[in-house]
Amino acid sequence: MELLKQRILQDGHATEDDVLKVDSFLNHQMDIDLLNEIGKEFRRRFAGEPVNKILTIEASGIGIAAIAAQHFGNVPVVFAKKTQSRNLDGELYTAKVKSFTKGKVYDIQVSKKFLGPEDCVLVLDDFLAKGQALQGLLQIVKESGARLAGCGIVIEKGFQEGGKLLREQGIRVESLAIISSISNGTVTFA
Amino acid sequence: MELLKQRILQDGHATEDDVLKVDSFLNHQMDIDLLNEIGKEFRRRFAGEPVNKILTIEASGIGIAAIAAQHFGNVPVVFAKKTQSRNLDGELYTAKVKSFTKGKVYDIQVSKKFLGPEDCVLVLDDFLAKGQALQGLLQIVKESGARLAGCGIVIEKGFQEGGKLLREQGIRVESLAIISSISNGTVTFA
Repeated sequence: MELLKQRILQDGHATEDDVLKVDSFLNHQMDIDLLNEIGKEFRRRFAGEPVNKILTIEASGIGIAAIAAQHFGNVPVVFAKKTQSRNLDGELYTAKVKSFTKGKVYDIQVSKKFLGPEDCVLVLDDFLAKGQALQGLLQIVKESGARLAGCGIVIEKGFQEGGKLLREQGIRVESLAIISSISNGTVTFA
Repeated sequence: MELLKQRILQDGHATEDDVLKVDSFLNHQMDIDLLNEIGKEFRRRFAGEPVNKILTIEASGIGIAAIAAQHFGNVPVVFAKKTQSRNLDGELYTAKVKSFTKGKVYDIQVSKKFLGPEDCVLVLDDFLAKGQALQGLLQIVKESGARLAGCGIVIEKGFQEGGKLLREQGIRVESLAIISSISNGTVTFA
């Protein structure tokens, strides 16, 4: 997606060899016009799929998913929670996710009320690197019996293994910008 | 907001004397049509204000703010972070927030790059109860020198003191549904 790549080059900030900060438009401050273009592009790529629910994970995925849902006929968005919450009721799907940046394993949770065999789910997230959070979401989709339309990712770090592992499992992953390297502050796309 | 009150009565779930679960449409699964009506109503109430930025806090505020922004001319949305994040760059505004449910004090953070004296900010959140998170956001707005248009809240627990304390400080708080009591599973609006 050319608009996104240009924006990454213009406003992204590569600070270390594997870190890309996009906090000015994607995951701290959100550019709503850009999110709408992103949503439109996800719709174009998953046009053939009868998506009736979008699944994401707090926090950065939520804005992307909420805006994208409008391009899928205002389907409901469910966001997995990373912490125990008083807001969650009844039985839960749970998956364990390993965080490399935080050096720990945490649970993600989705209420069983909101995902089941009747659903065709599109999983959305802002970043795909090692793919741990996404694998957790996919485990929950599988357990629920829902049909998986695929995964829509805004920025994939193509030099990490997450995308490769998912595609090897036969999962459709559509990444709007795939970065092949970040080196000395320079971002190169695949 | 009548539509919201009806939805709370229909799909909300009052479990204890002070707990209202709205996870089927607001803070776990999100009803995008309802969020658009909520955004429209916030726009109507703050029609006179030259809002050029929306500030909220992760996680449940993000979807509400992203959709609402579309009714304010697609202004950028900034969400305060509750945890230390590698995604945050440079200098930060920080405020301490006391969580009664979790029994601890945590920091919320907003990058100084995204809030300053040139901004007219609308602060949005899903719930207002004791108002601790909102007070933290307002402290950050004050420190930034931005003008505060006011606070837009989806559901205010009118039987807790947060709204009263804020209004006594002269802050404009617009809550779309104000609950006067939750008792034996029954929700009563003010």
